[in-house]
Amino acid sequence: MFSKKLDNLKTYEAGKPIELVVREFGIEPKDIIKLASNENPYGCSKKVQEEVKKIIPQMSVYPDDSMYELKEGLAKKFEIESKNIIIGAGSDQVLEFAIHAIEPKKVLMSKTTFAMYEIYSKQVGAEIIKTPSHEHNLDEFRQYKDEVDIIFICVPNNPLGECLDWSDVKEFIDEVSKETLIIIDGAYQEYASFKDTNKKIPIKELLNYPNVLYTGTFSKAYGLGGMRIGYGIANEYIIQNLYKLRPPFNITTLSLKAGIEALKDEEFVNNSIKQNFIEMQRYVEFCQKKNLKYIPSYTNFITIFVNNSTEIADNLLKIGIIIRDLAGYGISAIRITIGQPSQNTKVLLALDKLI
Amino acid sequence: MFSKKLDNLKTYEAGKPIELVVREFGIEPKDIIKLASNENPYGCSKKVQEEVKKIIPQMSVYPDDSMYELKEGLAKKFEIESKNIIIGAGSDQVLEFAIHAIEPKKVLMSKTTFAMYEIYSKQVGAEIIKTPSHEHNLDEFRQYKDEVDIIFICVPNNPLGECLDWSDVKEFIDEVSKETLIIIDGAYQEYASFKDTNKKIPIKELLNYPNVLYTGTFSKAYGLGGMRIGYGIANEYIIQNLYKLRPPFNITTLSLKAGIEALKDEEFVNNSIKQNFIEMQRYVEFCQKKNLKYIPSYTNFITIFVNNSTEIADNLLKIGIIIRDLAGYGISAIRITIGQPSQNTKVLLALDKLI
Repeated sequence: MFSKKLDNLKTYEAGKPIELVVREFGIEPKDIIKLASNENPYGCSKKVQEEVKKIIPQMSVYPDDSMYELKEGLAKKFEIESKNIIIGAGSDQVLEFAIHAIEPKKVLMSKTTFAMYEIYSKQVGAEIIKTPSHEHNLDEFRQYKDEVDIIFICVPNNPLGECLDWSDVKEFIDEVSKETLIIIDGAYQEYASFKDTNKKIPIKELLNYPNVLYTGTFSKAYGLGGMRIGYGIANEYIIQNLYKLRPPFNITTLSLKAGIEALKDEEFVNNSIKQNFIEMQRYVEFCQKKNLKYIPSYTNFITIFVNNSTEIADNLLKIGIIIRDLAGYGISAIRITIGQPSQNTKVLLALDKLI
Repeated sequence: MFSKKLDNLKTYEAGKPIELVVREFGIEPKDIIKLASNENPYGCSKKVQEEVKKIIPQMSVYPDDSMYELKEGLAKKFEIESKNIIIGAGSDQVLEFAIHAIEPKKVLMSKTTFAMYEIYSKQVGAEIIKTPSHEHNLDEFRQYKDEVDIIFICVPNNPLGECLDWSDVKEFIDEVSKETLIIIDGAYQEYASFKDTNKKIPIKELLNYPNVLYTGTFSKAYGLGGMRIGYGIANEYIIQNLYKLRPPFNITTLSLKAGIEALKDEEFVNNSIKQNFIEMQRYVEFCQKKNLKYIPSYTNFITIFVNNSTEIADNLLKIGIIIRDLAGYGISAIRITIGQPSQNTKVLLALDKLI
């Protein structure tokens, strides 16, 4: 009864939820430190919380499906127009729209990058081409660029943390056929562009390209991972085509409100980002002290190479610390979301004993 | 660049949101009566509201992607097991999974039914076969049943309101090839089975069929339309296949909580349903008084045939009353969600002047 394509599909391995550790190890939720899904450890803006609280009685009401106010807010922020924006249930839904709208025969991505690129591409039967290097290497991308219908560039890259310079990305875009869609995934752009302005994607400029789609999210720096709000930005032609695959009401009434209000509290976002890099330095110093290789990170997580990543991740889990083991990507490394200061203290202490 | 299939797609026409009437007609939100999207006019359970309020600080955290507790709650309610359940962002996402998982060549539905059947089916290039009759007519379904890969049965039917008896549906299922998926859409089942037990779908029994998928939702009787929570129930084989297309975190953290808590307050649901049919009677009497044809409804809305549905809907809109014009379905009728008593009083007064 089912399509043969299902046989070939992968499913996404989510970071282990707190609920699972409670169930499996009997640890109290308050004692669990979850640094596995790159959520904002400072939560979300208090102002956003207040505004969402006010409309809880409206949970019964469908959202404004035009998403007028949210798109206006994003348009203002990026100095573009609403017609250049589509809202998704997380930016990964925008990726889904794009991949299903193109139905690519082949797609290109770096060896280790956001898992949903491959998952959605396989849903439409695409062949996946990955560069030999785990991290983004544009020269390797150049070798395959003429064979593919979609190219994914994750800046900065999840789950590794490295980030290409915009000048290099721009040079690459100019070399790619206009018939190939280039998706610039900026889920962690707020972090990268804060740390180094060379990493900043000039989103408005992307509208000049006929074949570039930018994706962004409220899940990371904006602290709304649980609310599933992302967006795509591109020229009107691309956006109109993605709209054809958008189901109605694809974000919730409370998510819509949260997104609108989050754009009004950039101070929260900036403070989160500043604190992130202050705390990240502690992990960097730990790696230097222990002589561990790590990837200099432009995100809110850090990838640390270790001899026995699965064992370390498992041992941390037993004491209620959830991080991500990258063994599944063929890398003996752990990925740790940079937590709050007190969380990082505990994690570093635990790591000090294990490594 | 884009797939040719996009040319052929339809998009869903949502009920006009309150925000639009505010923007277009300058009417205050508090003065607008929205009875266009079959939301629960009594909102949602106060208990659910309280529980969701408590976890607002967790908007930053991704939901438990196993959805363990919600599935356990549903399993208990329907006397089935969690492995027979998949959660969707509204039941329409479950429809999307099913249609994309089957990739049907042809699908069968009644002429006027839930628009998403056709929209998702066209996304996979399926040919749409509709019965000649607007309302469900199983003899007409029988004429086409052997040609199609999916059959949609909406009990009760949206947007018309009629409902087949379970005994007739059962007889039909038994005649259909086991290679054809039958989707039983029970979005309004809580209303139908309250009004007439002959309409009640015995959900547990459906697991015995290798080719039947039931879909349900929290958007209607449970009063959580804005939270996008639905579910599919079927034998494990079907559910496992649908899971292959489920994106991670497909409902929000607050939605997950709302769903879990909503199952604990059936009193709210039952009161909403009782009140619904008391109030519906006022519309029935109005129709009888005015000698208007209407469809006896097993839902929380009523379809009334009128000479000039578009004109009536437009005139109501100007005074801040939003209902649905069914002209787009080729029927000169209006569909009105049964509102709260005071709302219905205003609508009936306005209709009395217009008809």
